[in-house]
Amino acid sequence: MNQTMPNWLYQRSLLTPDRQAVQYEDQVLTFKQLYGQSVQRAEKLANLGVRKSNHIGVYMTNSLDMVLNIHALFHLGAVVVFLNTKLSARELQYQIEDSKLQFVIMDDHFEEVLSFLSNQKKISMSKVYDLDLLKNTMNAREVVLSNVATMMYTSGTTGRPKAVLQTYENHWWSAVGSALNLGLDHRDCWLVTVPLFHISGLSILIRSMIYGIKIIVHDKFDPVLTNAAIMNEKVTIISVVNTMLQLMIEDLKEVYPPSFRCMLVGGGPVDDFLLEQCKKREIPVYQTYGMTETCSQIATLSPESSMVKLGSAGKPLFPCQIKIMNDGKLCPANQVGEITVKGLNVTRGYYSGTTRAFHEGWFFTGDLGYLDEEGFLYVVDRRSDLIISGGENIYPVEIEQVLQSHPEVIEAGVVGEKHSIWGQVPVAFVVLESTVDTKVLQDFCYQRLAKYKIPKKIYVMDRLPRNATNKLLRHKLKDIQHD
Amino acid sequence: MNQTMPNWLYQRSLLTPDRQAVQYEDQVLTFKQLYGQSVQRAEKLANLGVRKSNHIGVYMTNSLDMVLNIHALFHLGAVVVFLNTKLSARELQYQIEDSKLQFVIMDDHFEEVLSFLSNQKKISMSKVYDLDLLKNTMNAREVVLSNVATMMYTSGTTGRPKAVLQTYENHWWSAVGSALNLGLDHRDCWLVTVPLFHISGLSILIRSMIYGIKIIVHDKFDPVLTNAAIMNEKVTIISVVNTMLQLMIEDLKEVYPPSFRCMLVGGGPVDDFLLEQCKKREIPVYQTYGMTETCSQIATLSPESSMVKLGSAGKPLFPCQIKIMNDGKLCPANQVGEITVKGLNVTRGYYSGTTRAFHEGWFFTGDLGYLDEEGFLYVVDRRSDLIISGGENIYPVEIEQVLQSHPEVIEAGVVGEKHSIWGQVPVAFVVLESTVDTKVLQDFCYQRLAKYKIPKKIYVMDRLPRNATNKLLRHKLKDIQHD
Repeated sequence: MNQTMPNWLYQRSLLTPDRQAVQYEDQVLTFKQLYGQSVQRAEKLANLGVRKSNHIGVYMTNSLDMVLNIHALFHLGAVVVFLNTKLSARELQYQIEDSKLQFVIMDDHFEEVLSFLSNQKKISMSKVYDLDLLKNTMNAREVVLSNVATMMYTSGTTGRPKAVLQTYENHWWSAVGSALNLGLDHRDCWLVTVPLFHISGLSILIRSMIYGIKIIVHDKFDPVLTNAAIMNEKVTIISVVNTMLQLMIEDLKEVYPPSFRCMLVGGGPVDDFLLEQCKKREIPVYQTYGMTETCSQIATLSPESSMVKLGSAGKPLFPCQIKIMNDGKLCPANQVGEITVKGLNVTRGYYSGTTRAFHEGWFFTGDLGYLDEEGFLYVVDRRSDLIISGGENIYPVEIEQVLQSHPEVIEAGVVGEKHSIWGQVPVAFVVLESTVDTKVLQDFCYQRLAKYKIPKKIYVMDRLPRNATNKLLRHKLKDIQHD
Repeated sequence: MNQTMPNWLYQRSLLTPDRQAVQYEDQVLTFKQLYGQSVQRAEKLANLGVRKSNHIGVYMTNSLDMVLNIHALFHLGAVVVFLNTKLSARELQYQIEDSKLQFVIMDDHFEEVLSFLSNQKKISMSKVYDLDLLKNTMNAREVVLSNVATMMYTSGTTGRPKAVLQTYENHWWSAVGSALNLGLDHRDCWLVTVPLFHISGLSILIRSMIYGIKIIVHDKFDPVLTNAAIMNEKVTIISVVNTMLQLMIEDLKEVYPPSFRCMLVGGGPVDDFLLEQCKKREIPVYQTYGMTETCSQIATLSPESSMVKLGSAGKPLFPCQIKIMNDGKLCPANQVGEITVKGLNVTRGYYSGTTRAFHEGWFFTGDLGYLDEEGFLYVVDRRSDLIISGGENIYPVEIEQVLQSHPEVIEAGVVGEKHSIWGQVPVAFVVLESTVDTKVLQDFCYQRLAKYKIPKKIYVMDRLPRNATNKLLRHKLKDIQHD
């Protein structure tokens, strides 16, 4: 029999109707109000023909409207497909077609980017406001845990973005696993300055319902406003990536209030220097390892261990397991291999079909790392070639394919270069048919890729380092950089 | 595919090896020690032939050994069948046969009560200590959530005790549902003075593993020792029933420390007078409704609501649903009907087979109650005829059947009578063949029933009130008492 639960937001509004649920700019809604408004929003969207299991795109920057749309689509039993607002029109077009979207709900100002879509396929917020209510269309009085709730795109080593299927069950276990690790207090308030279209942001919205805690939503990250919110608005937890933490520290003049209990940092280990600064300012840093496929954290390092286990991402969450594999064999402690994870928060696969990454309930992340004798995880390299730039994942092969599609480029290789603000930025190595200004190649990329993916430098080479089977050896490119 | 998790105690010992797990008398074990000792215990029990899915009885009073036995049996993948230590030999014999026990692990001093069992069928703790270790017999590296973990007997309206199947899933969702309501702090310490063979006690042991918190185990309830533990041992939560709370208040000279955050009271609403006394002493009383079939709480009333919602058992836990049914129809707010519950903490049925109590995922509790317009549950009557005496459930029909088996008794009816200490005690009404001293009947019961079930008074009647279909009208017996 299908496992079910009461509709999460309904249940929360029944249990704690008067607690604050969400704050955005000068608007604050209680759970009862949020539920009421999201049901109204659902009745509007139902008028557009949204029904159970339909795939609906959300292409918005963080806002109360985005929050309401997400809840409304959950009420209708639709699958919410999140589109990264930084993508190029070509990238968007691919994802919209691949995920078979019925339509995309967008902020008005995104109209132009989606010019390739017909008017029935893109619904601006202005249009949504004007819709009549189609009453009694709430489908999801119960949550069926095995149903897909959301889809988010991630690129694999193949470079083709794939939609990760995230079920209600995945989200539930992620939220519960996190609470069992971080503890739970109904006075918690979680600040959302990361995008809701990323799992880092969405997972906070979902925890809010399940825990009954308030979230404060910022439309984008600003270190000054973020610090101000922590100082003055009783924020107790925030999710950030390395880059953000660094900017916050640079801006911070005082110490955070003692009620601020958790700085959850994803996207790679925090370096010693930054960690030392955090310690000096008594900031409780929890370093974490997770990905879209694990619906947020799968391992987290508590502050007590951060100085003794420098560079570690901590231990698995209670419901999760981590093992290190190499050539089908389990690696002993301290030996590097592929990080392999299991847990009910882990996706069952991609919309376009499962891959070799899933085996007997275990997901092979493609990331390299090891476990020490005490079970602490150390991530050595994300997916061997993944570049993380300001919290965004960049897959080299995606950029390489674009470069190679230029008539004058014979072959291309992309790697990450250290960057003081973004952590890493992509740089490219190309072999050319004839002389071309690298500026032309960057412009070529600009038309096809999100801005953060455009190589910041392009080096022209005679040939690229390849192994006997002609596989590009990206680590050799890194060596070239270091020369 | 079967949902799995890492072995709970293993995972806890991996994540927080050095946190205190359990305290009993002058012994304190960390999670690492508890795990190590429970694995050793498992290796001893394996030497007795315990294998996966075997039914093993535990007939013990609270102790560290009992805790170790429970964990050890979980490690072996065995089903732990709990036997109430207050039962008579006849009652025990029935349950041991019905649940097809391979053997019973018992405290040494229970040897005599189980004289009806062969020596292979009863294993005293002295015998367990002497066993050799059968190494590498740990079966349960993973918990399969749908597997049955424990069985506990409860009587229905039929009077035949039935074994409730409690899966790992049921226990998990119960623990998580409770944490989402009460909050979670790794510094919590939960005092166990209720029996571990009841779900009220066992559920605390399970929460301890999942939450990573300490439990202090007392072998029995003593109000003075309980108050001392709260005052001096950093206890933050305790589970009690009405009767216990009253005795604690009578003994209490001071106020509990502010770190004591939750007095969880089961077994019926706390009366106004007692609640008023608790308020005066700033005791945070959480009234709760639950049963063996729901693996502990399914609804809980928070202290903020206790004075405005006098007599209520609160709202459902987050993962749970409650509806009130009457003749197959949903009752509107404030109308009394049968309390019907749903949730992944709810048993899938009894060992002897499911009954009409389960329908489309809903469990019909047999208890009467209503929901007010805000969704607060009021329990009007437990299973219409259930008697709760000092936290123990007494089913009248069980006592009636014993009385009727006496040659001089024609018919018998049993109801609860108010009692200042125990809340209620059973009293009987009998129609006799010829004159018998009621003392004789009480002795007759004494040989066949647990002490708390023996009618404190027996009234001789000419006939019992019955309806047209000859059904005993117990409420009319109550009216007779009130005359």
